[in-house]
Amino acid sequence: MSKFGLFGKFTVKEGERESLVNILLEAAESMENLDECEMYHVSICEDEPNSVFVYEVWCSVQAHQESLTLESTQILIKRAKPIITGMERIATLKPEGGKGISA
Amino acid sequence: MSKFGLFGKFTVKEGERESLVNILLEAAESMENLDECEMYHVSICEDEPNSVFVYEVWCSVQAHQESLTLESTQILIKRAKPIITGMERIATLKPEGGKGISA
Repeated sequence: MSKFGLFGKFTVKEGERESLVNILLEAAESMENLDECEMYHVSICEDEPNSVFVYEVWCSVQAHQESLTLESTQILIKRAKPIITGMERIATLKPEGGKGISA
Repeated sequence: MSKFGLFGKFTVKEGERESLVNILLEAAESMENLDECEMYHVSICEDEPNSVFVYEVWCSVQAHQESLTLESTQILIKRAKPIITGMERIATLKPEGGKGISA
């Protein structure tokens, strides 16, 4: 089965970047024991004060889809919704390998 | 010191995607013992037959800059140049944490 990757960007209301970073770091923590999720990195960009970036690597596209239905994910989405103004899937990826990723 | 991340896209000549993937995987391999480089992931995207994506995480922006001057990097750049038609830095990142990234 092919790994599945995503690079996405959330846009938030003015001044809410840190709140969203914290919610997404909680999401990452809730996936700590989920083997299907290999990476869930949360980043910001100095030039974009209202954006938060997420880079995810999953063992399969199905694993990613299933994760969206988890209760813990749903709770976090509910908390994040009021501060999010946009979501953009910048790239849907098929990881080929490299440093720091399992074979 | 802040970690430094990059999400970038290379565009290649028709039919040269696999060649560039292989060159970049060699680059990743050459960085296997370089502690300053935490991640160097090479991906493709099914909808974009002439693109290759790279996600990198470095211990600092300086470490990334220095890596570009390494002899091994220079050799790989030389080999990749004839097949590359474009390079785009999609996002310059400040990683905040998450699953699969060191604290």
